[in-house]
Amino acid sequence: MSEPTSTGELALRAQELDAADELAALRDRFVLDDVVYLDGNSLGALPDTVPGRLDDVVRRQWGQLRIRSWEESGWWTAPERIGDRIAPLLGAAAGQIVVGDSTSVNVFKALVAAVRMARAADGGGEARDEIVVDATTFPTDGYIAESAARLTGCRLRPVTPAEVPGVLGARTAAVLLNHVDYRSGRLHDLPALTAAVHAVGAVVVWDLCHSGGALPVGLDAHGVDLAVGCTYKYLNGGPGSPAYLYVRADLQGRFDSPLPGWNSHAEPFGMRAGYEPAAGAVRGRVGTPDILSMLALEAALDVWDGVGIDAVRAKSLALTDFFLACVEAYTEPGRVACVTPRRPEERGSQIALRCADAGDVMKHLISRGVVGDFRHPDILRFGFTPLYVGFADTERAARLLADVLDEMSTEQRPL
Amino acid sequence: MSEPTSTGELALRAQELDAADELAALRDRFVLDDVVYLDGNSLGALPDTVPGRLDDVVRRQWGQLRIRSWEESGWWTAPERIGDRIAPLLGAAAGQIVVGDSTSVNVFKALVAAVRMARAADGGGEARDEIVVDATTFPTDGYIAESAARLTGCRLRPVTPAEVPGVLGARTAAVLLNHVDYRSGRLHDLPALTAAVHAVGAVVVWDLCHSGGALPVGLDAHGVDLAVGCTYKYLNGGPGSPAYLYVRADLQGRFDSPLPGWNSHAEPFGMRAGYEPAAGAVRGRVGTPDILSMLALEAALDVWDGVGIDAVRAKSLALTDFFLACVEAYTEPGRVACVTPRRPEERGSQIALRCADAGDVMKHLISRGVVGDFRHPDILRFGFTPLYVGFADTERAARLLADVLDEMSTEQRPL
Repeated sequence: MSEPTSTGELALRAQELDAADELAALRDRFVLDDVVYLDGNSLGALPDTVPGRLDDVVRRQWGQLRIRSWEESGWWTAPERIGDRIAPLLGAAAGQIVVGDSTSVNVFKALVAAVRMARAADGGGEARDEIVVDATTFPTDGYIAESAARLTGCRLRPVTPAEVPGVLGARTAAVLLNHVDYRSGRLHDLPALTAAVHAVGAVVVWDLCHSGGALPVGLDAHGVDLAVGCTYKYLNGGPGSPAYLYVRADLQGRFDSPLPGWNSHAEPFGMRAGYEPAAGAVRGRVGTPDILSMLALEAALDVWDGVGIDAVRAKSLALTDFFLACVEAYTEPGRVACVTPRRPEERGSQIALRCADAGDVMKHLISRGVVGDFRHPDILRFGFTPLYVGFADTERAARLLADVLDEMSTEQRPL
Repeated sequence: MSEPTSTGELALRAQELDAADELAALRDRFVLDDVVYLDGNSLGALPDTVPGRLDDVVRRQWGQLRIRSWEESGWWTAPERIGDRIAPLLGAAAGQIVVGDSTSVNVFKALVAAVRMARAADGGGEARDEIVVDATTFPTDGYIAESAARLTGCRLRPVTPAEVPGVLGARTAAVLLNHVDYRSGRLHDLPALTAAVHAVGAVVVWDLCHSGGALPVGLDAHGVDLAVGCTYKYLNGGPGSPAYLYVRADLQGRFDSPLPGWNSHAEPFGMRAGYEPAAGAVRGRVGTPDILSMLALEAALDVWDGVGIDAVRAKSLALTDFFLACVEAYTEPGRVACVTPRRPEERGSQIALRCADAGDVMKHLISRGVVGDFRHPDILRFGFTPLYVGFADTERAARLLADVLDEMSTEQRPL
């Protein structure tokens, strides 16, 4: 849309798009209000399946059955059962994902195990002594990668994603990459980067925090080795809900965890002094799973029944396209700059706008009922969750953003 | 009580003890039924404060405030706030405990940090290359210690607690000990063992899973360096509720975590590429905390308001003494053997009885409404939570145990 379009035209277009949206009815499965909630890429909204289920978990499973629930209520097997619920959304066959621990802890497990796998494939030497990490990544991945490097005798090489192929080589042990950049919303080329890492005999770990539940990942199809991700963004699992770990089926026998807790033992209740790892995805478990958070997530996943990730992706792109069209139409040229790539194949499910006074702009916008977030130093971040964000919401968000920007510009003019 | 005592006499004595019990009213703060629940050392019963609070966390804090709750509902600071709630129960001043992650993950953090601390105190060399661990420990501690040893270039020395003082020396970097043995219920001498570890310049990590909330620990008074423990046993936090990590105040500046996630950064929302650890107990945090499980724990801790750990310990010893007296009075001599030390200073808050066919005995006992647990290969384990277990419960448990043992003996007699 190169020509400015009137508010009335875009509002009408939003109505048409909402009417044609086959996912529109899913909005009713969430607890929402008049706020336009564009922060589902930080904390997903509450699915209506959660409160009742969690109340049953607390009052009946814990309160009445107590210890019996580990078996009778399926608590013990929840990490792999819920992993299998997430698997189709990531393009993974069953038996490869376990849920539990935080994303940071799973990055640690995956990265140390990746270094060990790469070295074991070479015959066990330490000629592979480099961990390559996306220098623009969410910081925790970099901190954890630094720790993994220190503990495995590796050197950390932080480079931009574009530079990754150029630094790969015989010394590369493991590569940690983000599928979608948390700040810019850029979607990286998972198939090509995975192939490049494999070409030098190294092991790749993908962080799917900003893509899982938002777009097709194709873990199995693209031969990804290991992946981690959180469940409280596009999977709506609740604040700090447990993360997941994917270990490709044929690599599970070689997954040598740095956190070999009793939950990953072949015979956890045998109370053996010696560690003997379980077969399968269970090997990625550590200690006792946080059942309340985990079963809230399980209830939250019910909203995905019958929903295909391709339809979600199609709507996500339509929403972000439409948001950009509205922003262009409503906002004074040059007042904001879009940091998120326009090309669909390079775009996640968020729009990041660079803007002067971004922190204040977001505060004002939130007070008007449009919730996005601010990322240091100058980014307005808007996440679009296709399960509950509509086109009228999107038009309204862009309109109110333009209003806030106008008013702030006026305020700053000399009298 | 060396003479057999009649059922009537012990039942009467139980009534008197219950009537004089100053903690008896606390039982009403828990969701309980006719079952005698002696498995609170595995999963504590549900405090009545939890269901309503968790419902508010889900429906209002998550459902309505959504992302705002990280600040407005105090989610972000929950790990250290709840740590401060637990601190008095462990004899720790505020500012030294954070809650989060599983016990296994916290053992890993503490043990790697302990090795680094011991080496740093020596000037940074690796002359200290041994981790001593209780060979009779809960297995996960041993598995994690093995991993910590491997990653820090140490040798693991598993020895019995009695052998610990004899193996300490200039090569000892860190020592991981259990305060109360999960199987036998033996309480180890924390002050003496801590002093012995310090005498050789090493760092001690105490696992308090089976003592925290059951008896005075005196972390500060005894100069303990690091400690970890779970919150779902005597602290009644719910299935898999997050564990805690204690780092003594004067050691926090030297706590060099192997899991330096963004939550432990000095400026977590600065999104800096370089890791700079926060000051204080916060340094023990890793990733995003599991808020639902964590705030259920916070609600559960309300039952401790006004309850002193010394009173809890006094009742715990009275309960276990009384249970043993009843077992001796009711059970055919030689049918069971008590594995838990009789001396109060060596006894935790559980009684472990060795018994033939222990697995079947426990199944029968549970079907009669007395819930303890079975630990491989031959242990009947009964945990006594003074907040909600009474003396009449205790007498009934011993009586039904004797009934089950009698009936099983009869069944096994040749016709």
